Amino acid sequence: MDGTPGGLSGISAPGRVAAPDEGVTEQELALAARNHGLPLEALRYDVTPPGLHYVLTHYDIPATDADGWRLTVGGRVRRTLDLDLDALRARPATTRRVTLECAGNGRARLTPRPVSQPWLVEAVGTAEWTGVPLAALLAEAGIADDAVEAVFTGADHGVERGVEQDYRRSLPLSTAADPARDVLVAYEMNGAPLPPQHGSPLRLVVPGWYGMAHVKWLRDITLTATPYTGFQQSVAYRLRQSAEDVGEPVTLIAPRALMVPPGFPDFMSRTRVVRPGPVPLAGRAWSGHGPVTRVEVSENDGATWTEAELVPDPAHPWAWTAWRTTWTATPGLRRLTVRATDAAGNAQPLVAEETWNRGGFASNLVQRVEVLCTTEATAA
Amino acid sequence: MDGTPGGLSGISAPGRVAAPDEGVTEQELALAARNHGLPLEALRYDVTPPGLHYVLTHYDIPATDADGWRLTVGGRVRRTLDLDLDALRARPATTRRVTLECAGNGRARLTPRPVSQPWLVEAVGTAEWTGVPLAALLAEAGIADDAVEAVFTGADHGVERGVEQDYRRSLPLSTAADPARDVLVAYEMNGAPLPPQHGSPLRLVVPGWYGMAHVKWLRDITLTATPYTGFQQSVAYRLRQSAEDVGEPVTLIAPRALMVPPGFPDFMSRTRVVRPGPVPLAGRAWSGHGPVTRVEVSENDGATWTEAELVPDPAHPWAWTAWRTTWTATPGLRRLTVRATDAAGNAQPLVAEETWNRGGFASNLVQRVEVLCTTEATAA
Repeated sequence: MDGTPGGLSGISAPGRVAAPDEGVTEQELALAARNHGLPLEALRYDVTPPGLHYVLTHYDIPATDADGWRLTVGGRVRRTLDLDLDALRARPATTRRVTLECAGNGRARLTPRPVSQPWLVEAVGTAEWTGVPLAALLAEAGIADDAVEAVFTGADHGVERGVEQDYRRSLPLSTAADPARDVLVAYEMNGAPLPPQHGSPLRLVVPGWYGMAHVKWLRDITLTATPYTGFQQSVAYRLRQSAEDVGEPVTLIAPRALMVPPGFPDFMSRTRVVRPGPVPLAGRAWSGHGPVTRVEVSENDGATWTEAELVPDPAHPWAWTAWRTTWTATPGLRRLTVRATDAAGNAQPLVAEETWNRGGFASNLVQRVEVLCTTEATAA
Repeated sequence: MDGTPGGLSGISAPGRVAAPDEGVTEQELALAARNHGLPLEALRYDVTPPGLHYVLTHYDIPATDADGWRLTVGGRVRRTLDLDLDALRARPATTRRVTLECAGNGRARLTPRPVSQPWLVEAVGTAEWTGVPLAALLAEAGIADDAVEAVFTGADHGVERGVEQDYRRSLPLSTAADPARDVLVAYEMNGAPLPPQHGSPLRLVVPGWYGMAHVKWLRDITLTATPYTGFQQSVAYRLRQSAEDVGEPVTLIAPRALMVPPGFPDFMSRTRVVRPGPVPLAGRAWSGHGPVTRVEVSENDGATWTEAELVPDPAHPWAWTAWRTTWTATPGLRRLTVRATDAAGNAQPLVAEETWNRGGFASNLVQRVEVLCTTEATAA
């Protein structure tokens, strides 16, 4: 009875963009209250402490049980695998430090605003993931000659834009089966079993790709002879200019730099307060397209830029790069801007329009931080 | 230079309520993206797993170091204490399971909406806190005869409504020094050192009180001979009907029941989908005023109520109480309501107006959950 008042379409509307001057809706707010970003001061940690890493859950966090969990690997393989957690833990393990960002990061700063999870800039985090290399599992199963993609199914179930579904995404085998891509079937995050909200007991980790590819609560991997065209591949996560546009798929993370906001904040406006003089600035930058090669800071909206010092960590090529510089603050209300450039030559845009698309994906507009430099102090 | 364009007042406006039909602002959204509630399906856990417990940080999470941390206990005491973490850990420890709720929970459902952290219903969580009983520390220091309050100072620093401050709150000694109130100086949450966002390395835990009393990043306790009148006591956290109203202080948690939303959700509307027939309903209820004595569910906006079964846990008097019942779903769009009553006779209101105050505190309007009961299924 889809399409009738009692049907799913009545509670699950198509994607839309907000009307001009339409404030954030209660539906967007309910998503913002459930999901959360990285509080930006937590950029100070090389590895994001538990609970501070961003979380985006499409449906509910499922009630999973590690004891009875099975991962099946089937479809276009020579032999089907059916593995429990012990079987996965018995195989050679790999640990990778990976920076993970939601594809919708930046969405709420677009005009018009795509109506979905309303991220500003904070949907990111870095963790140490431990698990079995996907390439090894696929080699063990044996990839059939006609296989082209691996389709990953999670245990999370819901409705989206009128379609009831398990969360499901695919990767081309050129990524999934390439040991150099370091795709993992992970069972530990920062040395502990996965927390419920990060996919307990198993999730996919796809270094360099936006979060939608890192299927949580992973229960099945199926190789296919044709590209997967399900909802999360063909309807969601496309870069469209209009509802009719087929669009390009969202894949690798676009470059972004974020700054630990300097000084201390006002509770409500989050404007920062610093005293005049040298102010250390630091943060992180990352890109799925290659190493970050430049981070620049501007105190005058891009009229001039100061290049920050990068602190690369060759041991962790999939993790963000630390950067630092010093800013000499002078009294007044300032606006700091930071931007990253990667080895492939991608840089962050200064205007949101350059990243607009109907789903609000991969929008890497520069971060701007309002800072009041003042000699004033009022004791409480 | 407060009051001038370069001063703190320029970035830190007085509290206000939203204009009629004013959508959620970008400032409220920035708070919602940093702070987060309990995803309601996580009500299934007796003790909230790390990262799912609600978090509200006024300023920044400070960069603290457990190694050099000192807690001082002074003011109107017979001998000042200056303790490091080892000294606290060497004292007899107590563990208490405590349900903690933000005083601003429910604020964003008020009309007009107080402009602050825009919680809907989800600012709650339950944890096992381990630490030293505050009553024992105060007895060790020796309470001077003229002492009336204990003032607690955290390491978090910022500006709020124009006032630069360390976060600071007081408790009357009738609560702080009463062993039966179980107030703790806690250094562990769920058996592990406190995470940064929950007060690492030390926080106050005040069972039965709203979250503003549980001072995080605790570094000083000072007993005073007069009641404390600082910002967080006399300006914030008051139940005022107007800006001029002195108001009553926010203290104990008002009763509230929450339901694990049944079935599965639509991504955007969060409306639930169930099939016709018996649907198990379950959740939690709590009150700072005494045990929860009744939880009721209505499928018809309160025309009739079904009493749920309570599952009390006498071992954990400061924690929420589980409840459960079964609802027979029939096709159509339904709205479930749940309400709690406590031993003191307090019950949740059915209309928001009954809880309105200018700060949006202690608003315990009933939860309502939209549920579509349908036989329809669409495969992805």
